[in-house]
Amino acid sequence: MEKDANRVYIFDTSLRDGEQVPGCQLNTVEKIQVAKGLESLGVDIIEAGFPISSPGDFNSVVEISKAVTWPTVCALTRAVEKDIDVAVEALKYAKHKRIHTGIGTSDSHIKYKFNSTREEILERAVKAVKYAKKFVEDIEFYAEDAGRTDNEFLAKVVEAVIKAGATVVNIPDTTGYCLPEEYGAKIKYLCDNVVGIENAIISTHCHNDLGMATANTMSGLLNGARQAEVTINGIGERAGNTALEEIAMIMRSHSDIDLWTNINSQRLYPMSRMVSGLMNMPVQANKAIVGRNAFAHSSGIHQDGVIKNMSTYEIIDPKDIGLDGNSIVLTARSGHAALRTRLEAIGIKVDDNRLDELYKQFLVMADKKKEVNDEDLLVLAGNENKDSHHIKLDYLQVTSGLGVRPVASLGLDIAGEHFEAASTGNGPVDAAINALKTIIKRQMVLKEFTIQNITKGSNDLGKVHMQVEYKGKTYYGFSANTDIIAASVEAYIDCINKFTDR
Amino acid sequence: MEKDANRVYIFDTSLRDGEQVPGCQLNTVEKIQVAKGLESLGVDIIEAGFPISSPGDFNSVVEISKAVTWPTVCALTRAVEKDIDVAVEALKYAKHKRIHTGIGTSDSHIKYKFNSTREEILERAVKAVKYAKKFVEDIEFYAEDAGRTDNEFLAKVVEAVIKAGATVVNIPDTTGYCLPEEYGAKIKYLCDNVVGIENAIISTHCHNDLGMATANTMSGLLNGARQAEVTINGIGERAGNTALEEIAMIMRSHSDIDLWTNINSQRLYPMSRMVSGLMNMPVQANKAIVGRNAFAHSSGIHQDGVIKNMSTYEIIDPKDIGLDGNSIVLTARSGHAALRTRLEAIGIKVDDNRLDELYKQFLVMADKKKEVNDEDLLVLAGNENKDSHHIKLDYLQVTSGLGVRPVASLGLDIAGEHFEAASTGNGPVDAAINALKTIIKRQMVLKEFTIQNITKGSNDLGKVHMQVEYKGKTYYGFSANTDIIAASVEAYIDCINKFTDR
Repeated sequence: MEKDANRVYIFDTSLRDGEQVPGCQLNTVEKIQVAKGLESLGVDIIEAGFPISSPGDFNSVVEISKAVTWPTVCALTRAVEKDIDVAVEALKYAKHKRIHTGIGTSDSHIKYKFNSTREEILERAVKAVKYAKKFVEDIEFYAEDAGRTDNEFLAKVVEAVIKAGATVVNIPDTTGYCLPEEYGAKIKYLCDNVVGIENAIISTHCHNDLGMATANTMSGLLNGARQAEVTINGIGERAGNTALEEIAMIMRSHSDIDLWTNINSQRLYPMSRMVSGLMNMPVQANKAIVGRNAFAHSSGIHQDGVIKNMSTYEIIDPKDIGLDGNSIVLTARSGHAALRTRLEAIGIKVDDNRLDELYKQFLVMADKKKEVNDEDLLVLAGNENKDSHHIKLDYLQVTSGLGVRPVASLGLDIAGEHFEAASTGNGPVDAAINALKTIIKRQMVLKEFTIQNITKGSNDLGKVHMQVEYKGKTYYGFSANTDIIAASVEAYIDCINKFTDR
Repeated sequence: MEKDANRVYIFDTSLRDGEQVPGCQLNTVEKIQVAKGLESLGVDIIEAGFPISSPGDFNSVVEISKAVTWPTVCALTRAVEKDIDVAVEALKYAKHKRIHTGIGTSDSHIKYKFNSTREEILERAVKAVKYAKKFVEDIEFYAEDAGRTDNEFLAKVVEAVIKAGATVVNIPDTTGYCLPEEYGAKIKYLCDNVVGIENAIISTHCHNDLGMATANTMSGLLNGARQAEVTINGIGERAGNTALEEIAMIMRSHSDIDLWTNINSQRLYPMSRMVSGLMNMPVQANKAIVGRNAFAHSSGIHQDGVIKNMSTYEIIDPKDIGLDGNSIVLTARSGHAALRTRLEAIGIKVDDNRLDELYKQFLVMADKKKEVNDEDLLVLAGNENKDSHHIKLDYLQVTSGLGVRPVASLGLDIAGEHFEAASTGNGPVDAAINALKTIIKRQMVLKEFTIQNITKGSNDLGKVHMQVEYKGKTYYGFSANTDIIAASVEAYIDCINKFTDR
């Protein structure tokens, strides 16, 4: 990497830390799509997964390594040799690779998580870095719960791992408890006190539990850190991680801060929509930078014609983040080439076979919807082949309204056999699910049911996300359909297939 | 107010700045409900509205003044005598009252908004404060766009308005552009340079355009401000205002910050739900403190039994913000007293007549839903009397599904006359709206359509929020029903009634 004292490296962990949101896990195809989007956004490092945690994660790291060219692909490990071996294997195809290993350094982690001592933890940290260094040149070390780690001991750990070969040292505020001044002072303490600090980059990794992730990250960068670990839309466990778009736009809009990144800001909005769409995680209307209202001015207090110049209130040009009013739509008359162009514009690259397949589905959708927009295409491209599932919905008919009792009849194909049932309910979805339950008699409890209308219009695609509890475990289901009742039943069946397929 | 150097006053502007969100305006009854909730939360000052802006705002300030006892009720004005006269009138019944007047002080505002000079602006500021002081003792002055105002001129304005009688001086970062260090330095500059600063309280008012509102507010408080202007859930124009719950929990959980507020933290979660429910503004899952996932740990990275002690990761006890797993539900067998108790627990106080009315609606809902939870009650209590509307839905029947063509028939009562129509469509809602449009033939365009399932379960209430454009203006409609199709049609009719009723 080039050496420039004011260059900040953007390390995106949407696919690792960000993906740890209940019900928002992505499959490998979707992860590749996000990774390619991150590449075109100009992200420097993509944390692609935690290979030892599951075969799915392992496979995602392999496939992302193959799929991207410029960004460094990073794999997470604990400070354990087996973890590192598996990560090295997963990174085999990466053009630029990094191992991210580490261990908890706060007294709370040392005592409760490891039942260990500071000396032993230091030793394990150094050992892990030295081991990883045998296979990969670029090694990042994380000092978990650094936010609550005593600065003097932290400096000792950082010095030792740099000496052992770490190229980047990550100082996470794991609990999201730090205040900006405190976090910045911690980074400054390390810069001032660690011998050999010039041989490594210090990285920030902040959580938003108190709403301070962005401020803590900026405070870290202003005090000497040169890598920021972030996620698109600030997704992540609990209150989430630092939002990439906020950090990028702060540095871009504040020329008084002499720091720069490689982010292509005009890709921020499309990436935000892609990740929100694929993870079924709606972005709240007043989210900074990428929320629906972020650039909307109400007429409320300014009604009386008070505003003479809009620049009086706005600091960022919506075009700078890739938001323009003229979104391009496709229709049934659009050809293969138009579909491919639009898919590529939103970060989806497909081969000819996949394009043919998508084009067929696109025509079906265009026939129903007349206009197919970017978000519809994301849904299309995210559709898996559901033919292989155990239970399929053959037909569904629901009647409901006002002054009538909702009634539903449906037909299911269960492993080739046909079943039919009908039932009433409190609403159309309730009636349909009651009918379904007279065929599939299991103790299933619907825990959560979310309907998300992606864009606008009454003929729009509705996305339904469900959580069903069965035998103490929760299963997630999803479907998208112009008919929200059909989408709801399909999502419920998707849940059931998750525990009957295996 | 008591004098304690470390006491921070919480100034809630959910009902004024927060309410400036397109489509989220509350009616007076709802505003009173929020105001009473804010009182029980321990808020010091409630900004109730901008009386001159509309008769509705005027009326809300009057009714909130009557409804609350302990908090100071504040009314916004421009630095204009007529505004102040109207605000004084609106505050007539307030037990503790404050006028919030001010003017833009940045060069951009002076030049583009007022076409004026610094000298003239300073004069107008002083004149407004002196005028307001004739009627009300407690006067807050805002220096709009203070974030971009030159510190020297800002100090001059602050000094002059304090001399003129201002008790509080508000330093808003109107564009949300400041960084925490910069904003804190501005507050410190004023504390250090304004003669007579000890006679007033400095107030922070931050916007979240760069994701820094919370950090800026804390930086202001740590540098000498003693009032924070905030909103529940951080609602507000564009990316919103500083979130009350974040500021309150930062001071509560950081004993190293020697600052305290009067906030009863256990009311934070109920208030968050109340405001989200009444404004139809979903809170995103990873919102700090009050988001659905804020306290949820995924099993992702910690799968292997790594976690030995949950306190290793959590810093706030969910009970501290009023979140407990055992939410109380009512059934058709619950009596009047149970309903009243539950309504009061979520901040809704009702007289006997209103209770009778709500109890009837409650029984209808309990009959459909079996279990009625807090959020259902919020919907019930928020229902206006819709009998007076021009267009009413008499009946609706919709058939849709998978493998059938959606069809809808409906009957409308328009000013006493009955109309019927039927149509097909791409989905059940589309079919019903097509039918409706064959009766009401106007150039209406559906701009936005949001379905929000409030809690969980297929027999749950669905809330539908719509925006319809007609003759260049946008109208908002809302409805809640266990049948989401019926709710959608009702919401559409609600929009139409907004432009045909007047």
